[in-house]
Amino acid sequence: MDEIPLRRKKLFSGARFSSVLLYNGDAAHLPSPSFVYFSGCRVDGCYLVLKRNGGVLLSHKMNYERAKAESFYPVKMLGKDAASDLKKALGRGKIGFAANEMPAARFLALKKKLKTELVDATGRIAAIRAEKSAGETAKIAASAKIARKILESIVPWEYRTENELASHLKIAALAAGCEVSFEPIVASGKNSRFPHHQPTNAPLGDFVLVDFGVKLEGHCSDLTRCYFRSANGAKKERDAYEKCKRVFSELFASLGSCKNSRDVAVLSDRLVKKHGLPAMIHSIGHGIGLEVHEQPRLWGESKDSLRGAVLAIEPAAYFADFGVRYEEMVANVKGKWKKI
Amino acid sequence: MDEIPLRRKKLFSGARFSSVLLYNGDAAHLPSPSFVYFSGCRVDGCYLVLKRNGGVLLSHKMNYERAKAESFYPVKMLGKDAASDLKKALGRGKIGFAANEMPAARFLALKKKLKTELVDATGRIAAIRAEKSAGETAKIAASAKIARKILESIVPWEYRTENELASHLKIAALAAGCEVSFEPIVASGKNSRFPHHQPTNAPLGDFVLVDFGVKLEGHCSDLTRCYFRSANGAKKERDAYEKCKRVFSELFASLGSCKNSRDVAVLSDRLVKKHGLPAMIHSIGHGIGLEVHEQPRLWGESKDSLRGAVLAIEPAAYFADFGVRYEEMVANVKGKWKKI
Repeated sequence: MDEIPLRRKKLFSGARFSSVLLYNGDAAHLPSPSFVYFSGCRVDGCYLVLKRNGGVLLSHKMNYERAKAESFYPVKMLGKDAASDLKKALGRGKIGFAANEMPAARFLALKKKLKTELVDATGRIAAIRAEKSAGETAKIAASAKIARKILESIVPWEYRTENELASHLKIAALAAGCEVSFEPIVASGKNSRFPHHQPTNAPLGDFVLVDFGVKLEGHCSDLTRCYFRSANGAKKERDAYEKCKRVFSELFASLGSCKNSRDVAVLSDRLVKKHGLPAMIHSIGHGIGLEVHEQPRLWGESKDSLRGAVLAIEPAAYFADFGVRYEEMVANVKGKWKKI
Repeated sequence: MDEIPLRRKKLFSGARFSSVLLYNGDAAHLPSPSFVYFSGCRVDGCYLVLKRNGGVLLSHKMNYERAKAESFYPVKMLGKDAASDLKKALGRGKIGFAANEMPAARFLALKKKLKTELVDATGRIAAIRAEKSAGETAKIAASAKIARKILESIVPWEYRTENELASHLKIAALAAGCEVSFEPIVASGKNSRFPHHQPTNAPLGDFVLVDFGVKLEGHCSDLTRCYFRSANGAKKERDAYEKCKRVFSELFASLGSCKNSRDVAVLSDRLVKKHGLPAMIHSIGHGIGLEVHEQPRLWGESKDSLRGAVLAIEPAAYFADFGVRYEEMVANVKGKWKKI
């Protein structure tokens, strides 16, 4: 909770809005990550109204008591005319909101009711969330550690099918006091050619790709490993996988020379080519934190800051009959890159 | 897949748009339920373009092969200029979209790029999805059966804390080949006064409320039970819980007299009062299907159709020091209400 006021301060620094409105809970039981980030609480069905010098949580009657028990900011109960309560809390001036986390339906209804200009603060919020504090990096690292331990402990062939292994991974996450940060990808043999393959009842063959992460107190991890049944089978797959690992190592060693996210994408392209792998069909990785995918965006078009970034780096190669991927996590701590 | 063309037909019947655009995957790895409903597939990062006489799925390169393998409709690959590919597929005329499932950010970007009027089809889509086919009702009933079996098999006091019991419920869902349809609510003693309590490390006392459901092949269930450690403890809680169960029974017996969702809310208010329970602080229930909460909405303001409806009915009573709730599922099959 200590970081909450600082986050609010960053949000308003040089902003062209005088208040910010965030809503939690449009998808049933799924917290809006920015709401959680700026409020420190996960109570659903609430509005968070932030101003330069403070904030207030507005809750419907149903969750009011819980909101009072959990919120950093004072809580007010929404009356029958929620729009007028909101207006009052927001005051005059432009209102910032998170256009990527608010459904168009709510946006259109609010626009009509509040009769004020709504300013999309998505980019600003993403940039603030991209720069992790030491505390956040530590939590993400703890999440990565748990996921890695689970990935290192599995022997895929103890399970019959992709679905069974995926189910085991989910149970292992729960047993470790977490949940999965996304539906695990378990792809056997040919299925690995789809980067986002969904597990099926296909039996596990000589080669299995697993992309898996956990969410520890809201903080996500995301790792990928390839598994080989025998020491001399699946030669093509093994060769390509070893190359991906080399791309990762060399990229990690050179991350210090990257000034922004675009540089990472350019470096990655060069290394993928150097090792004779086909050009990537997805980006080399992504920022990670309260969401599996967040800023910085590691593609050629964006020049996001790498300051305080936590990244999942995932060199991959896809062919007609298989795909391989290696994914690990790194953090920029006071300008230095560390494996986490 | 048999129902897919029929669903499309309903979507365009008397519609004031000439095409519909749905997008899957704004929240990482979370399918848009309406995209799944109208496309029959769950591939993320794809647009579904529907027209009166057919449809097409537009996929980025990364998921193109998987989309081709899974889609009911033909698949086209999006090029560098995705907006112009979309325009071409959409053709002329107004475009319907699901404003409640599309983030404002994507809506605003599409509006700018497509330069065509976007018509919110949320209400129309919700009404179509609310009327379940026999096949859908059967799948939801199968989901409810699994959740009920799990709830009937647990002895809460075999677990030390709310979190441990919640974790067990999630593992039980996975072991049954499902996943949870929402984060289970496990509330011991006083914590039960919050309808949406989040499990904590509080030890399990004499009285525990559990609200839990599973998702079976995308189809949700949602049930609530209260558990009592001993036959003569927690008397107030037990009395109120028995009254909730009676409200449910009497409501179920009279559902046939309800013409629309508003009638159910009015009937519920009357029964809650009759049994001397405090007025509800949430609605008496909700439609359920691909989402835990969908139409019909069972509150006084809405007059949604009950034709083919599948409902979770949850009479509840909240007091200063505890809350109780009983939740079961019912379906309207050819005009008759059945417990499922």
